[in-house]
Amino acid sequence: MANPKNILFIMFDQLRRDYLSCYGHKTLHTPNIDRLASMGVRFTRAYIQSPICGSSRMSTYTGRYVHSHGASWNGIPLKVGEMTMGDHLRKAGMDCYLVGKTHMRADEEGMARLGLEPDSVIGARVAECGFDVFERDDGMRPEGPDGFYDEGGAQAYNHWLRAKGYESDNPWHDFANSGLDAEGNVLSGWFLKNSSEAANIHEPDSETPYLTGRGMEFMASHDGPWCCHLSYIKPHWPYVVPEPYASMYGPEDVQEVIRSDAERENTHPVLRAFMDTAIGQSFSRKEVRDAVIPAYMGLIKQADDQMGRLFAWLEETGRMGDTMIVLTSDHGDFLGDHWMGEKTFFHDASTKIPLIIYDPSPEADVTRGMVCDALVESIDLAPTFVDAAGAEPAYHILEGESLLPILRGETKETARDYVICEYDYSASPIADKLQANVRDAVMFMVADTRWKLIHCEGGYRPILFDLENDPDELHDLGDSDVHADVIAMMYDRLFAWARRPSQRTTRSAAQLVEMRTKSRGRGVVLGVYDENDTPLELTVKYRGRKAPNMKNRPDG
Amino acid sequence: MANPKNILFIMFDQLRRDYLSCYGHKTLHTPNIDRLASMGVRFTRAYIQSPICGSSRMSTYTGRYVHSHGASWNGIPLKVGEMTMGDHLRKAGMDCYLVGKTHMRADEEGMARLGLEPDSVIGARVAECGFDVFERDDGMRPEGPDGFYDEGGAQAYNHWLRAKGYESDNPWHDFANSGLDAEGNVLSGWFLKNSSEAANIHEPDSETPYLTGRGMEFMASHDGPWCCHLSYIKPHWPYVVPEPYASMYGPEDVQEVIRSDAERENTHPVLRAFMDTAIGQSFSRKEVRDAVIPAYMGLIKQADDQMGRLFAWLEETGRMGDTMIVLTSDHGDFLGDHWMGEKTFFHDASTKIPLIIYDPSPEADVTRGMVCDALVESIDLAPTFVDAAGAEPAYHILEGESLLPILRGETKETARDYVICEYDYSASPIADKLQANVRDAVMFMVADTRWKLIHCEGGYRPILFDLENDPDELHDLGDSDVHADVIAMMYDRLFAWARRPSQRTTRSAAQLVEMRTKSRGRGVVLGVYDENDTPLELTVKYRGRKAPNMKNRPDG
Repeated sequence: MANPKNILFIMFDQLRRDYLSCYGHKTLHTPNIDRLASMGVRFTRAYIQSPICGSSRMSTYTGRYVHSHGASWNGIPLKVGEMTMGDHLRKAGMDCYLVGKTHMRADEEGMARLGLEPDSVIGARVAECGFDVFERDDGMRPEGPDGFYDEGGAQAYNHWLRAKGYESDNPWHDFANSGLDAEGNVLSGWFLKNSSEAANIHEPDSETPYLTGRGMEFMASHDGPWCCHLSYIKPHWPYVVPEPYASMYGPEDVQEVIRSDAERENTHPVLRAFMDTAIGQSFSRKEVRDAVIPAYMGLIKQADDQMGRLFAWLEETGRMGDTMIVLTSDHGDFLGDHWMGEKTFFHDASTKIPLIIYDPSPEADVTRGMVCDALVESIDLAPTFVDAAGAEPAYHILEGESLLPILRGETKETARDYVICEYDYSASPIADKLQANVRDAVMFMVADTRWKLIHCEGGYRPILFDLENDPDELHDLGDSDVHADVIAMMYDRLFAWARRPSQRTTRSAAQLVEMRTKSRGRGVVLGVYDENDTPLELTVKYRGRKAPNMKNRPDG
Repeated sequence: MANPKNILFIMFDQLRRDYLSCYGHKTLHTPNIDRLASMGVRFTRAYIQSPICGSSRMSTYTGRYVHSHGASWNGIPLKVGEMTMGDHLRKAGMDCYLVGKTHMRADEEGMARLGLEPDSVIGARVAECGFDVFERDDGMRPEGPDGFYDEGGAQAYNHWLRAKGYESDNPWHDFANSGLDAEGNVLSGWFLKNSSEAANIHEPDSETPYLTGRGMEFMASHDGPWCCHLSYIKPHWPYVVPEPYASMYGPEDVQEVIRSDAERENTHPVLRAFMDTAIGQSFSRKEVRDAVIPAYMGLIKQADDQMGRLFAWLEETGRMGDTMIVLTSDHGDFLGDHWMGEKTFFHDASTKIPLIIYDPSPEADVTRGMVCDALVESIDLAPTFVDAAGAEPAYHILEGESLLPILRGETKETARDYVICEYDYSASPIADKLQANVRDAVMFMVADTRWKLIHCEGGYRPILFDLENDPDELHDLGDSDVHADVIAMMYDRLFAWARRPSQRTTRSAAQLVEMRTKSRGRGVVLGVYDENDTPLELTVKYRGRKAPNMKNRPDG
């Protein structure tokens, strides 16, 4: 089998699946991404493992559920010892580099306990989620009265902007993510009203083109085999885009909001708390959607144009022939659907992501342009990459499954019957509103092709959607007696999943099977009454031995 | 509160709870251990977390369930990154030393990945389950055609024996764990028939007195505060004891076997597979019990005498006044009960352990001699020790609860409603017999004061015992329709337990609560349409900023 030499792993942040034309957007055309889909396989049921940047990514990078790796919210460090795709790929002989965002928080306490220095090779990888860093850019330079959200955020980009003449203590904010009024006042992109302004930046200097350039610089300077995680910040908020994209879309291009008044009646208390946040209330207003969504569309259009630039460069340099290209997102964005904004709940708007994989191998010719409806999870990417690198994925650690057999036309389905997504709001203000302790402020989603069940800890009834008859997820059947059997079935699946042996990561299945007979050959003899009852070869070390009588020797 | 200065954490291996006279044995008197009970608190419902040495101990040492730490069978390494009582206690200012057995297998692959050298201070602790090693003695020197079971097993002890004149390549086997016939032939203790022989060793040189001496050497040479894990190998097999203990008990002292013919009818298939092992068949024979149990009783009597020696020394040296003493076991032994030998199932004979805690603090005077029926788990010991060392247990990592409030008379109960025990037989020959894959060869026990439910993966019905009406656990109600509600309730508990956030170990509850408001003060503004809609102090950094127009600058 001819495996690709390299893997270009492109992730956008908060890119909603149905905002690409290949996934059905009517007024936003993304021909470059669509072209990648026509060259590869486009997945229609790809689910993330958590609807928030950091936790979703930690699952993607580790190939493990949030319940397994524990980094269940932004800012909760990924604990020392968790292996990531970088660790697996390097074992397979492939480098693994970061260009962009991870939202990784290092486990500084765990590193100190194990004596791992952040400036050592090993320590740096542990601190950076297993990647070697070409450029880390989490793309966030918020600053409040208590200081910066992220001390290291966007530093290289800010430095680069300043060198280009963007004079400010925070050009990320003042230029890349804000507009400007006629009097020279910065119109901060943090305020949604300003999303209708054009970013005060020359378009090629904005974040998406910048990172595309950085990705090309990496690829031009590294021979490979490499996996390059080119990880964009946009279309994540602040929702601001420079011209010409700022003027490209208007309220008339905004698709109809997916919500109903019925959703506000008999609403599940936890869901209601999410609707009732400032974000939910904001995005329920038409003026907010009309300001934000055209900018969001512009950011995606810009991203698509950058993909065109990138793919052209890959073809020119020959990389298109030896590089697997994966394009996905870490979660979607409600944008007012279901009376919510942001991403932190389980409707498809957030949990179903775009996923397109182009495999240059001749074996994948049979699937070019294929649309795949298999149940896929973000945790499948790490084993897919290991498989593509020519090694056996370590399935006692990796909880996903390789998609290579689908890409090569050997199967149309994954082995799973359901997908799992989790959200931990214990560190969110919503937990205060619901008076939830940190153990109860946790939710699980289990979904198959027909049903989606959401379980909230804390003694609540479930939420249930019928994805076949209610694809827009407008009717919560969680308190429907008629659906008691469905609810029980979905709970059984969640239960089976929760019992999985997710931490037995130090021995493979093959090693466990080998152990079944090993101790006998090493002299552990159990349950044998008489030495003549057992085969000679197993007890040869215990027979025919001689010794002096030592029972009554004087105490020495 | 006056906390003890030190902790002496005594563990016996395979010491069955009801083989101590304070726990009700009729013919075996253990006055020294009974005396400790009269000075402290004796727990009657203390459960282990796995009925096998290594996994039970990894739970005790980490304070975490097997499902959380993953070292689910002997020989499955405890993965790098798991914290143990040693890590927690050192943070609290208390050393933590090992004198004896842990059954720890180091995660060599994980250590190599993180660059941890076994001969560094940190690497040695990671390799030794977080302990500083005074003496590691797993007490096993089996040898078969494929070599030694444990290359390092009993090395120091073997060396010591040889220096005392016990000439052999394996004195652990030939003298400490074997008898001798009149012709000078070694009668190997690996064969149960030879359990009726006296060990061919001068009693003070046998394993239990040897380790007692080593423990006293440690305590005499270390000022403290320390936690000393004095971890005995016996009464674990090989079941052989020297004189005078070898002759102390005979078949007439053996208590009646707890089993019934009914247990062999309609037997749960997994339970039947355990009964049908060579061990189960052996221990179902009277001659085996009559040979083994008197030796097992002799080993316990010897252990009790050594406790007398140890406690006298502690009193002489003043340690009894400043040292908490904990005496427990890692699991029991079926000894023919329920048609089984060894420990690898969930009846009380194996999963309920002796646990006695003596707290020298004046605050504990109110509970001296108390018998406590609270539901206790082995994972409670680590937080108890941290609490006794004067620090706050890290409950985001430690899954047990401190028993100090019980020891000090502040409460009579733990907070839990049920206990959990797990067994993973994926690496055992029984998995082959049941044709179980490594994911299905896993079992869970959930028990409260009334019911014990056992769930076996692989599509089997549950096993259920009524502990109140059937304390001997002879009647499996797992297929009783009458008990459907009880079974459902116990499954609900297992489900709730399985969903617990066990890997969110890098942030404490207090830190999570603090995070609920933190990001706003650091400039992350979500859902605000107009800058005038939010308090000035939260957006002060984004207001009043000025910038030149940079939108149309020439491309630099």
